[in-house]
Amino acid sequence: MKAILLLSGGMDSLVTTAIAQQAGFELAAMHVNYGQRTMQRELNSFRAICSHYSIQQRLEINADFLGKIGGSSLTDLSMPVSVANLESHAIPASYVPFRNAGFLSMAVSWAEVIGAERIFIGAVEEDSSGYPDCRKIFYEAFNRVIELGTKPETHIEVVTPLIALKKWEIVRKGIELHAPFAFSWSCYKNEGQACGVCDSCALRLRAFEQAGMEDPIDYETRPHYIDC
Amino acid sequence: MKAILLLSGGMDSLVTTAIAQQAGFELAAMHVNYGQRTMQRELNSFRAICSHYSIQQRLEINADFLGKIGGSSLTDLSMPVSVANLESHAIPASYVPFRNAGFLSMAVSWAEVIGAERIFIGAVEEDSSGYPDCRKIFYEAFNRVIELGTKPETHIEVVTPLIALKKWEIVRKGIELHAPFAFSWSCYKNEGQACGVCDSCALRLRAFEQAGMEDPIDYETRPHYIDC
Repeated sequence: MKAILLLSGGMDSLVTTAIAQQAGFELAAMHVNYGQRTMQRELNSFRAICSHYSIQQRLEINADFLGKIGGSSLTDLSMPVSVANLESHAIPASYVPFRNAGFLSMAVSWAEVIGAERIFIGAVEEDSSGYPDCRKIFYEAFNRVIELGTKPETHIEVVTPLIALKKWEIVRKGIELHAPFAFSWSCYKNEGQACGVCDSCALRLRAFEQAGMEDPIDYETRPHYIDC
Repeated sequence: MKAILLLSGGMDSLVTTAIAQQAGFELAAMHVNYGQRTMQRELNSFRAICSHYSIQQRLEINADFLGKIGGSSLTDLSMPVSVANLESHAIPASYVPFRNAGFLSMAVSWAEVIGAERIFIGAVEEDSSGYPDCRKIFYEAFNRVIELGTKPETHIEVVTPLIALKKWEIVRKGIELHAPFAFSWSCYKNEGQACGVCDSCALRLRAFEQAGMEDPIDYETRPHYIDC
């Protein structure tokens, strides 16, 4: 069975790729450039991960209208990328309005054309940034939209293998599956060395610490996010 | 209250605009270029209709990835635009896979940023081409996705004022509201004179005939689609 991976190049989508590959799916990978600050770095990660897993069928999408629409510190350069506050439950300024619905819609369009029946997305609900479009209930509702909005003979379903995992469990899973973490990129802010202090770096560093593993990528600064 | 119009420039989105304006909404209009054959002509219609209704807040989106994905005679130049068969119940080759979900997702992203609470789309279920993403049930499911996938303080809803109307009723409604049909464009195939024989022209011509009105745009050929 053919599956589409939504592959940003971050650690979650990397581990999702490893899981889908191990499960025996024929893989096609999709990446979206949407005017985010670290666009080129993420694209490089996407390509490196695809090559690692020998994924030939790839789609690189230009969705710079999301940058034009703005409303997020990831795409609006006048909004600063905030330093992480892992205790807060507010939706952070990095939230890109309704982005995941847009990405899933693109993936479903492609799935209808290439005959894929599964769409893998590395969304994490339990231990995440608090984005509304990373919740299991959102993906269940989206699957209903797919069922109703596609040709009756198609059977396309979004799957979220990481949704209920803690971030450290994702690291462990990746290590177990020999996922090449060195190729992945999570930082919201920098393209050279990861900043180590944005929400995404903080969640990643804490996850590696909690998993008792060393993150192989390079950081500008590498704070501790758990008590030792 | 602010509302976003999904305005392709066809007769349905034109009449939807007229309805939303009459209802007193503050209007913002969005148009998507997606590599469709009549892209330039539709864009001209969008702009003319916006000017007619004095809509200042406009967003023109480039979504040419839909053309790249293909799967439709509207975007894939190697697939012919078929001559209409208004008796058929099959999904026609002009169906662009899951397009409306993509357009709605973009509109919701924009709505979150500009504070719009309604999204108007001129989808028609009763008397249409049989596209799965033009059914009321699809929009109901999409509204659930919006509710779950946006910030909790937002209240965005897709509304479909034409969904249960016959096409001739849409013509009548447009005439009643003085909608400038001469500015609208429906043909799937041509940018100069409308072809008169594609699905979209056939539905439009039949609608004007049934409404007992003359369509003011120019046709290459103007067949009768109802018995006189």
